[in-house]
Amino acid sequence: MKRKVYLKLHTLDDALKLLFESFGESPLAKEKVPLEAAWGRTLAGNAAALLSSPAFHGAAMDGVAIRAESSFGASERRPKTLAIGREAHWVNTGQALPPGRDAVVMVENVVSGQSADGTETITLEKAVFPWQHVRKMGEDIVATESVLPPGTLIGAYEIGALAAAGLIAPPVFARPKVAIIPSGSELAPLSELTPEILASGARLPEFNSLVLSALVREAGGEPLVHPIVPDDPEQIRAAILEAVRGPADLVVVNAGSSAGSRDFTAEIISQLGELLVHGVSIMPGKPTAIGAVEGKPVLGIPGYPVSAVIAFEEFGLNLLARWQGRERLAKPQAWARPFQALPSRPGMEEILRVKLGRVDDQLIAVPLARGAGTVSSLSRADGLIRVPAPVEGFAADAPVPVSLIRSPGEIDGALLAIGSHDNTLDVLDGLLRKHRPGYRLTSAHVGSLGGLMALKAGRCHLAGTHLLGTDGLYNRAAISEHLKGVPIKLLRLADREQGLMVAPGNPLNVTGLRDLTRPGVTFINRQRGSGTRVLLDWELARLGLDQQSIAGYEDEEYTHMSVAAAVAGGRVSAGLGVKSAAMALGLDFLPVGVEEYDLAVSARYWDDPRLQSLLEVIRSQSFLEAAEALGGYGLSRTGEVLWEFEG
Amino acid sequence: MKRKVYLKLHTLDDALKLLFESFGESPLAKEKVPLEAAWGRTLAGNAAALLSSPAFHGAAMDGVAIRAESSFGASERRPKTLAIGREAHWVNTGQALPPGRDAVVMVENVVSGQSADGTETITLEKAVFPWQHVRKMGEDIVATESVLPPGTLIGAYEIGALAAAGLIAPPVFARPKVAIIPSGSELAPLSELTPEILASGARLPEFNSLVLSALVREAGGEPLVHPIVPDDPEQIRAAILEAVRGPADLVVVNAGSSAGSRDFTAEIISQLGELLVHGVSIMPGKPTAIGAVEGKPVLGIPGYPVSAVIAFEEFGLNLLARWQGRERLAKPQAWARPFQALPSRPGMEEILRVKLGRVDDQLIAVPLARGAGTVSSLSRADGLIRVPAPVEGFAADAPVPVSLIRSPGEIDGALLAIGSHDNTLDVLDGLLRKHRPGYRLTSAHVGSLGGLMALKAGRCHLAGTHLLGTDGLYNRAAISEHLKGVPIKLLRLADREQGLMVAPGNPLNVTGLRDLTRPGVTFINRQRGSGTRVLLDWELARLGLDQQSIAGYEDEEYTHMSVAAAVAGGRVSAGLGVKSAAMALGLDFLPVGVEEYDLAVSARYWDDPRLQSLLEVIRSQSFLEAAEALGGYGLSRTGEVLWEFEG
Repeated sequence: MKRKVYLKLHTLDDALKLLFESFGESPLAKEKVPLEAAWGRTLAGNAAALLSSPAFHGAAMDGVAIRAESSFGASERRPKTLAIGREAHWVNTGQALPPGRDAVVMVENVVSGQSADGTETITLEKAVFPWQHVRKMGEDIVATESVLPPGTLIGAYEIGALAAAGLIAPPVFARPKVAIIPSGSELAPLSELTPEILASGARLPEFNSLVLSALVREAGGEPLVHPIVPDDPEQIRAAILEAVRGPADLVVVNAGSSAGSRDFTAEIISQLGELLVHGVSIMPGKPTAIGAVEGKPVLGIPGYPVSAVIAFEEFGLNLLARWQGRERLAKPQAWARPFQALPSRPGMEEILRVKLGRVDDQLIAVPLARGAGTVSSLSRADGLIRVPAPVEGFAADAPVPVSLIRSPGEIDGALLAIGSHDNTLDVLDGLLRKHRPGYRLTSAHVGSLGGLMALKAGRCHLAGTHLLGTDGLYNRAAISEHLKGVPIKLLRLADREQGLMVAPGNPLNVTGLRDLTRPGVTFINRQRGSGTRVLLDWELARLGLDQQSIAGYEDEEYTHMSVAAAVAGGRVSAGLGVKSAAMALGLDFLPVGVEEYDLAVSARYWDDPRLQSLLEVIRSQSFLEAAEALGGYGLSRTGEVLWEFEG
Repeated sequence: MKRKVYLKLHTLDDALKLLFESFGESPLAKEKVPLEAAWGRTLAGNAAALLSSPAFHGAAMDGVAIRAESSFGASERRPKTLAIGREAHWVNTGQALPPGRDAVVMVENVVSGQSADGTETITLEKAVFPWQHVRKMGEDIVATESVLPPGTLIGAYEIGALAAAGLIAPPVFARPKVAIIPSGSELAPLSELTPEILASGARLPEFNSLVLSALVREAGGEPLVHPIVPDDPEQIRAAILEAVRGPADLVVVNAGSSAGSRDFTAEIISQLGELLVHGVSIMPGKPTAIGAVEGKPVLGIPGYPVSAVIAFEEFGLNLLARWQGRERLAKPQAWARPFQALPSRPGMEEILRVKLGRVDDQLIAVPLARGAGTVSSLSRADGLIRVPAPVEGFAADAPVPVSLIRSPGEIDGALLAIGSHDNTLDVLDGLLRKHRPGYRLTSAHVGSLGGLMALKAGRCHLAGTHLLGTDGLYNRAAISEHLKGVPIKLLRLADREQGLMVAPGNPLNVTGLRDLTRPGVTFINRQRGSGTRVLLDWELARLGLDQQSIAGYEDEEYTHMSVAAAVAGGRVSAGLGVKSAAMALGLDFLPVGVEEYDLAVSARYWDDPRLQSLLEVIRSQSFLEAAEALGGYGLSRTGEVLWEFEG
């Protein structure tokens, strides 16, 4: 069983250049589609106006069309009377002027009457100038001029311009077709899997093809998804050949592009055609293969979902955009200060997913999980930070460029909470969004003390905290010690039951903290600075137990839910955390104590409408009911301001 | 024939508030859709994970799964050998670890072998720590936690997160249904109209329903377009009743919402239900009516396409977003300096469409046509500037907020040309986009002298100019006089034939400039500062003709094409302009002279890659052929640097 090696890693730019050199020319046919069906398509040629708009001189107001000359000399003393039907004509907005008429008098400015012979007349007391209230022919668009350049993505506004120019069947590119070949013997279609099969690990769900299909659609293309192919070189070869000989313009094999023993994509491409690139110095996305088979581009992209997305975006989406005569839409750029240092491996360009919040005028970036398997790091991200290959990372607090995934407006609507994690924060976010669309609660989990430090540095609006002081009170001592100069309002979110989580049925018969020192009982701790860890240490000291006697005391997780997951997955026998986490995963729960979980709010944001809206939500019946349903919360003082710290 | 009045104009905010007070609660049903069909839908409830991701401890690398403990003590001197199948197990990335195994050793770090009894073995020379190269259960998502908040628009990334969480049929809102009722006796469906009917003005093309439908689709909704209804109160009433009693969640009547004699929408709404708002102090969009009929919201929006779009965006799209649990996506904001003063009527909030270009670090905004009928002002716009109601407008050059319609990347790829208009500029834009995707040429037309002034002020990268100097040379004198201190490279774009454009067949038998003074011959001039006007004045002086003897000398248009349109539409008998414009509209052309049309490029942008790419395009065969096809151009020196002005 041997591992192959990448012969040469290409930089992203070099790899793109090689791809474009071979496949930059668009293979897409051009076709004419009715305007009704043109939305989302891309203009394939010059859209030269067939008609002017307006196509004639038209009334810009409801009123009377006249020849301006016939009003010259009119005054209050010497009004001019014109006969309707002969010298003047009622017109409605948009209507063509009758021949020889060159002005419109608004209906308010004429007096209707009748002449002796019964003809309807109007009388003017003021002269009008030529072309008054007239939309002149070609005012908007002049026939033959280009209304939109080729490569334009046709949206609502463009439909309007094409229609006004008489282009009722504009030339567009045929939708690029992308064959997607999922490969992997362990994979099964998502729809065929039960939770039991998935939990057993016997089969892995194949969902990258859904994600890639959505990316293809977002780029204006049409995905053609092949059934899953097992890790068999012959079957992969056959699938690639079938795809390149079919209607696809681009073929994507996912995965098998790495250098592992079951990774055949690169080798098969080089056998069937030419392998241009194998290995790109980006992370995630390194194991990417790019080649040409029978004149069509074949991309081998890695299997981890984040790697697959990034590799496909960089190569597939750039190619689809180029073929349609445009660039891939660049994400808006901004500058953000990393909440913490972002180390990165030199020699690799790393793409980090971050959450963003605007605190005062600073955009603060909080990194999400880096793993290439953490697909939620994409859906949770507000932006991407690229650490260039030559750089060893970015320091905390120094501004770095960030590409925005969400609009700046959405980001600016976010309250940024950094600190201890609690499941009610997710609930609050959902309720806040509903209560005040446009607002949200973005939370990052670094433990209680980390949150207070972030407040001190002005990197967040509020911090969840549950730090037991030596005075036996929660949070006051820590805030007094660490937040000198920063006025704080301490708001009760909830009392929480903390306790030991153990497997259902408590097979090891753990009865309390004392049992953690028993041989065969393993534990998972929370990180230093977390309130749960402080509580544990306080209780261990009270009971006279040695930290080092607990197997796993040094092993750390960052949230209650991940501790619960470690217990549920059988990784450890016990962990300390809140009851709601235990209940969520069906674990047994042995109470250790009740603690206060509070929100420390920087007083200068107290009157911020986002914060006030959050307060309304915290004090609402909906929140009480939702927290009740999570279980393990005491809500009697929820929403109370407990203490105001002057700073 | 009477004009009604608006009883009370509402501000935009007040009108929105009234709309939301009555209709803020979502009428949308919730439904579960398979993940394959969830793209573009909006989450209607909390997406609580059914599964953890990974759902088990899995290998993060291809290698051998072992129990870490069994490697403890291994070293180069004392390697440990483990039996495959008993103590060690080959695993592939993503595979579940066998029970009791808690670490993966990369395949590179083991030596394969065989024991005496023929069992396959691996040998380790180094201990590994527990959970090395293991993706722990719940690392990405822990079952029961919320993966996405309600109101989330489901895109590619969200599909990945939902799939990983086992949510293969997420709860989404039913697509909001919007009934669109086009009304107007003069309207006919675009597809039924010939260019001849359109040019006659007998019928107007109805295309707002296509634009509104596209906006509804972009907002995740489903448009239901009603056949065109004539301006008959009974028929409009019937159409509204049919729509509110049908599946529509929102009913839009377009147009008839104004206060004109044929405008029935507001009155019918108040007869059938309640009229909440009639008249909003926004421009375009003032004649908007908002009401409630049988419990459903009915919007009456104006008929001019830009007004229709803005009124529907402000009221319809905000409502659709709210119903789906989110805000309408705010456009990214930036600060831009208006190229010229932007006067606006106090008391009305005006929404101006602008082109944008980044010159040095400044975003420069050039206003597009303001008319509510100029639908191309939407498709050509890069951004919107809102002039608040209390303000009389904005001064030139002072930074004002702008909402970006195009991405900042697209805007930054633009070369901004301000100055004289020539049809080849559109051709250059199209070719540049094709040659270097991401780059574009944005041009605004203010005449040659206006362009030089913009160059001087640092408000553009280059300026098209054709100013005949008293020295008989083009552009040198004007540049020397007006651009002191600004180094310029003068680049020849083309020689152009200028001449008189007259109706086909030259019915008035115009033979030259002298005939412009003949009674019955009317003329349309170009604006002051335009090269064409300078040429006219020079030629008139040479011929000893008095400007005031020409009927229409004071009448001005801003581009060759609009002069040609004025002639083609019969508004005037003659205009002066370039041959290509005459040819485009099939006019007769009487040559007056050949002039130089040059590009004055600010020397400090000469090495800018966008400018160098433009230069490549100007010097390409494709451009020569395209200009040749337009007609009237001399291209022998095209692309030559004629003169370098030191400043």
